[in-house]
Amino acid sequence: MNQLYNFSAGPAVLPKKVLQQARDEMLNWHGSGMSVMEMSHRGKAFISIVEELKHDLCELIDIPSNYKILFLQGGASSQFAMVPMNLLRGKTNADYIHTGQWSEKAIKEAKRYCSVNIAASSKDAQCTYIPSQNQWQLSSDAAFVHITTNETIGGVEFHWTPELASENETPLVADMSSNMLSRPFDVTKYGLIYAGAQKNLGPAGLVLVIIREDLVGSALPGTPSLFDYQTHIDNDSMYNTPPTYAIYIMGLVLKWLKDQGGLAAIEQTNIQKAALLYDYIDTSTFYHCPVAPQDRSRMNVPFTLRDPALDNAFLEQAAANGLVQLKGHRSVGGMRASLYNAMPVEGVIQLVEFMKEFANTYD
Amino acid sequence: MNQLYNFSAGPAVLPKKVLQQARDEMLNWHGSGMSVMEMSHRGKAFISIVEELKHDLCELIDIPSNYKILFLQGGASSQFAMVPMNLLRGKTNADYIHTGQWSEKAIKEAKRYCSVNIAASSKDAQCTYIPSQNQWQLSSDAAFVHITTNETIGGVEFHWTPELASENETPLVADMSSNMLSRPFDVTKYGLIYAGAQKNLGPAGLVLVIIREDLVGSALPGTPSLFDYQTHIDNDSMYNTPPTYAIYIMGLVLKWLKDQGGLAAIEQTNIQKAALLYDYIDTSTFYHCPVAPQDRSRMNVPFTLRDPALDNAFLEQAAANGLVQLKGHRSVGGMRASLYNAMPVEGVIQLVEFMKEFANTYD
Repeated sequence: MNQLYNFSAGPAVLPKKVLQQARDEMLNWHGSGMSVMEMSHRGKAFISIVEELKHDLCELIDIPSNYKILFLQGGASSQFAMVPMNLLRGKTNADYIHTGQWSEKAIKEAKRYCSVNIAASSKDAQCTYIPSQNQWQLSSDAAFVHITTNETIGGVEFHWTPELASENETPLVADMSSNMLSRPFDVTKYGLIYAGAQKNLGPAGLVLVIIREDLVGSALPGTPSLFDYQTHIDNDSMYNTPPTYAIYIMGLVLKWLKDQGGLAAIEQTNIQKAALLYDYIDTSTFYHCPVAPQDRSRMNVPFTLRDPALDNAFLEQAAANGLVQLKGHRSVGGMRASLYNAMPVEGVIQLVEFMKEFANTYD
Repeated sequence: MNQLYNFSAGPAVLPKKVLQQARDEMLNWHGSGMSVMEMSHRGKAFISIVEELKHDLCELIDIPSNYKILFLQGGASSQFAMVPMNLLRGKTNADYIHTGQWSEKAIKEAKRYCSVNIAASSKDAQCTYIPSQNQWQLSSDAAFVHITTNETIGGVEFHWTPELASENETPLVADMSSNMLSRPFDVTKYGLIYAGAQKNLGPAGLVLVIIREDLVGSALPGTPSLFDYQTHIDNDSMYNTPPTYAIYIMGLVLKWLKDQGGLAAIEQTNIQKAALLYDYIDTSTFYHCPVAPQDRSRMNVPFTLRDPALDNAFLEQAAANGLVQLKGHRSVGGMRASLYNAMPVEGVIQLVEFMKEFANTYD
């Protein structure tokens, strides 16, 4: 079949080289005679996979020794509860920045455990921008400040890191699910970072957590053991059987990322890909992107056709050209092109070419 | 390399045919041009995988329409908390049968949410038997009765189903993680069944839950949304992104199981495999199995060598003969051979042959 480009918002495209290696090792990992799926999580072979993954992660992003790396289950949705269940530390209030549907979900779950102060929100403009920090109204007694660094549905992204006056007392917590490892970032600016794997890291069913260890140990009474970060730190993510195969695939993805030149290099490629698509949309009168230019996501590009009646024709013809999973989220309609790390530049070039042809035909 | 037999207690051996198909479809599932890992969980392709899985599961075990099938994350450990958080329904007490380390973990977690009555326990004999039902001291006001149908560490298994006088008021809850789909069973005898996938169903990171729907809807206050069965029923296991690849592999495992003739046929094979090993151990004076014969697990066979100083030699020579992951759990020592569905009869024959030779050499 022809080359296919998969613009799914997640689970999403993986590097072809990763899938090829996974295929080749499926029945016999490194001469072990076993699939990684068949290995005891406490055996030497699998432990070596985890150790190498941690090593590679620390090469890609500098993670100080007072931060713990955890491989958990339940995706970002588990973290929406785990963050307040663990990080209130005697306080009753937390600050959240509302920038789209993912931050809204985090807020909704947090409200079950504490009083939530919406310190800033772009809901007044359908979450098409990121409120700048001088607009934030942080509370003085918040246990933490929560941001969503990229919103897959609205297509906004933090291109800057908030500076908190007292980051030791009020840690910054970030849901980085959809732009993790797409650009360099400074771990020390955050108290806790979490990222569901199914965008830039690997398959669904794995969530990466990087947490400053002094924040752990004060889970609310009634917190399930599995939702207490301390449980996982004490057991090095082996309290229960971890999602071993997803961890293995993430390991392969990190090797691929290192081969690409690491985060600084992948960021340049991601800037290039996003520019290709946004620049074309902005010159076009046929397509429209509603997001404020300075806050546009490099990962998820939502756009609409001038005439929504053409949406189905667009999707059908795109698919016929090998450009798939472009349908916008059901809550906003239109189109969405997700350009995660594993999307090659060539895929974006093909998409823009197709969009031009489609516009020429129907304009 | 030579044929290898993997006796791991879990994650465990998978059918070779399943791994071969997963390998062949890794980069292109059914002509889609995508790996299953890359598919949106809300797309037609993946939905068809889930629907077929449910269909096959209902062919293998008769699941009445008032039961819901859920595909969750967090393994049995998540269920240790979810069961009491959801099933107390205004009561404050639950009955647990203590038959080994897994029931002990379930009990420990349940105590965080309710008063636990240990209705029966074999701890007096290092959990080497299953207390018969006439020894059970059930409480009159228990919200549910919890059993662990197979203990992977101690190697005991329920070969009978408890009969509760008022099963509608006091549902039977079973952790079937390690013998699920190894034999036929009557779903209607249970209110809730859960099973981590990484023994007989597929890879780690997936837990199957079958729950009678009238039991749902009374989660304790403070229960995370992700730990409320209602959340998952309302969203057909798509509240958050499910572990899509693990679900796909489970689908392949069920196809393989149907090809074997279903549960009645696989049970006969499992009986045969277990008999091969236990019969040899019982005739030997060199090996010993401490478990009461009538309660011996078909899935996990723990045994010791007369002289523990020979353990390392046994493990090394077994591995040299392609018989791997035979080391007993660190808490009990000795050996353990796990004989899940995917272990071929030939693997057990080879193991017994090796054990005979080893005994002849060192006896």
